Amino acid sequence: MNTQTITAALNAVREQKPLVLNITNYVVMNNTANGLLAIGASPIMAHSRDELAEMMAFSGALVVNIGTPDRIWIERMLFAVELANFHCKPVVLDPVGCGASSLRTETSRRIAETANCLIIRGNASEIIALAGAGAGAETAANNKGVDALDASEAAVEAARYLVRHYGSSVVISGEADIIVTKDGEIRLYNGHVMMPFVTGMGCTLSALTGAFAAVGDTTGLAAAAVLGVAGEIAAEQSAGPGSLQLNLLDALYRLDAETLMRRLKLTPSN
Amino acid sequence: MNTQTITAALNAVREQKPLVLNITNYVVMNNTANGLLAIGASPIMAHSRDELAEMMAFSGALVVNIGTPDRIWIERMLFAVELANFHCKPVVLDPVGCGASSLRTETSRRIAETANCLIIRGNASEIIALAGAGAGAETAANNKGVDALDASEAAVEAARYLVRHYGSSVVISGEADIIVTKDGEIRLYNGHVMMPFVTGMGCTLSALTGAFAAVGDTTGLAAAAVLGVAGEIAAEQSAGPGSLQLNLLDALYRLDAETLMRRLKLTPSN
Amino acid sequence: MNTQTITAALNAVREQKPLVLNITNYVVMNNTANGLLAIGASPIMAHSRDELAEMMAFSGALVVNIGTPDRIWIERMLFAVELANFHCKPVVLDPVGCGASSLRTETSRRIAETANCLIIRGNASEIIALAGAGAGAETAANNKGVDALDASEAAVEAARYLVRHYGSSVVISGEADIIVTKDGEIRLYNGHVMMPFVTGMGCTLSALTGAFAAVGDTTGLAAAAVLGVAGEIAAEQSAGPGSLQLNLLDALYRLDAETLMRRLKLTPSN
Repeated sequence: MNTQTITAALNAVREQKPLVLNITNYVVMNNTANGLLAIGASPIMAHSRDELAEMMAFSGALVVNIGTPDRIWIERMLFAVELANFHCKPVVLDPVGCGASSLRTETSRRIAETANCLIIRGNASEIIALAGAGAGAETAANNKGVDALDASEAAVEAARYLVRHYGSSVVISGEADIIVTKDGEIRLYNGHVMMPFVTGMGCTLSALTGAFAAVGDTTGLAAAAVLGVAGEIAAEQSAGPGSLQLNLLDALYRLDAETLMRRLKLTPSN
Repeated sequence: MNTQTITAALNAVREQKPLVLNITNYVVMNNTANGLLAIGASPIMAHSRDELAEMMAFSGALVVNIGTPDRIWIERMLFAVELANFHCKPVVLDPVGCGASSLRTETSRRIAETANCLIIRGNASEIIALAGAGAGAETAANNKGVDALDASEAAVEAARYLVRHYGSSVVISGEADIIVTKDGEIRLYNGHVMMPFVTGMGCTLSALTGAFAAVGDTTGLAAAAVLGVAGEIAAEQSAGPGSLQLNLLDALYRLDAETLMRRLKLTPSN
Repeated sequence: MNTQTITAALNAVREQKPLVLNITNYVVMNNTANGLLAIGASPIMAHSRDELAEMMAFSGALVVNIGTPDRIWIERMLFAVELANFHCKPVVLDPVGCGASSLRTETSRRIAETANCLIIRGNASEIIALAGAGAGAETAANNKGVDALDASEAAVEAARYLVRHYGSSVVISGEADIIVTKDGEIRLYNGHVMMPFVTGMGCTLSALTGAFAAVGDTTGLAAAAVLGVAGEIAAEQSAGPGSLQLNLLDALYRLDAETLMRRLKLTPSN
């Protein structure tokens, strides 16, 4: 995938307006719905077993975010993943706080095991914790809470393990975003240091990843590129994280292919 | 109702600061509470059977929004509607995603059947789906998900059916807002094309409809006029949907009678 | 505690980045998480019994906010308070709407009874209702809904009762913020009249109170000082409550010790 494919994916989202079904956490429901609308997609938030089958039938992708988990919601998430499998739709897993509790670690793994077409989007600490001892690496997750304490590079080995073990793509987001697939790694150097001061920025990336997966990009690259560039444009205009949250939505809404290509910093470039 | 009645209603909300009880969806709880505060009303969000009776006793109106439904919340919504009936308080129904799942369609109809003093506020697709075959029209809802795919005019026949069947008022919101009552239709041409890119804009209209119902406007007209004008003022100042969301709250807070009357575009005018 | 101690507390939050565990209401989860991030702390939102023990073990404080209560969440709140006690961590109670329903009044009292190291942060109406007849004062709460109808001064006697009865600190927030401890009262005159037009402003204060408690200020003073000054800076830049909500996050993020000390209006001064 190169920069032209990324801009083509952006155009595809805006033209197809894919429906993205989200079972996500209470904290970020508003942000992620707004992020999806701003980029041109159509968000649906639903969690009742009584309607998930109907909703999944006409949705283009499923985003499962475990940020405020409990038993009832976890069962619904797994049910929704099975429905996505039945309809051959991609699933984005956001393992929020994976490693901070065994509930989150185990839930993330159950969802990852269940999904047939999977993209995992997490910060470095979450990716390392999700891989766990299986990664065979010396790395151990430092996460307490839901904020990353590890640099993205520290999670690459873990991500490679997840790619092999689950047949998934993995997006490690952080100061650098690293997209890990069976074909290797792509690194993105967009974004801004102020972004972690807005809650749910990673959750918004996961939601956008669902929109791009629905139009064919199951690597996670296009979403990371778009959010990285829009975030950096927004941060340049923002006095703090409050402004950033809204300027990001404006930047997503206004982002054009020319700006995206000009700003994009990725390696290997092509 | 004419423009003077609308500005009188706005003054009444600001003077009486009506308490509006909301059982609403997780996505928009923050927006709708802020919308109510900005216009001068006092929002209460509650959903426990253990307190709804007490809360309804001193609230001026009930807003029921089915945006993230499940069985438990639906039972609580119906219970709250019965309490509103007991206290002779108006009920605003926001049938979010009606037609997108049978759960939403059936739930919307159960709530509409139950309420004695009812205002229905939905987009065209939702209104058509709520009326269903009963509308006796050739129209069929196009809704997938929660975003409208039909123009407001396409839902007028369905809205007339709902007015007859439930004895309600109906607000079809969209590019044009159409207020349908037993006395006919009023059309509003305020608002802005950017508004659907902010999640929960319709939900905010439903919440405001509750505030105006609490001070006596059970048609839905005053709320639609106020949100349409405030939304168009806000959009003129906004680079995108992120800015719009906050500028709308500022515009609601600052809206004066003179601006409202000058900007208002409605037919039949009088 | 004087202004130097307050600025020292602000520095401590930014250096230690304390983890604050929140069981809070659906309306304000996003605001309060963003408020904590903006000031330099790390928010965790969790409510499952399956992970609260692990989460509490590494958190610096617990914030319990009863804004959208139901039986299940109330049990989890009490469970979390017991865990905080076990780990000798401070608990902030935000008794949202206390007095508006017996569920809220009783729940607030159960939580206050249970917590060993307690800070209560409420508006005047909530504090008066929480103390109830026990206050032995002539005061009776005027609260309907969740907005304060009493001035802060009217709640001082009730707050003194709570301090004696629960061994807690009490922050009465309002036009004046009054911090009541066993050592007497401190009054803060920062803030802005526009702040009550943003939903969850008090909830954000409670969340920040948790961050400051985690670094050693269990009076609630530092949080009230920081939010009061940041809120007044933000309001001066805001055309309405929509702008205020985001400018507040920017102001919290940018607040420096010099500005804080210069702006702070408190009595007794020292």
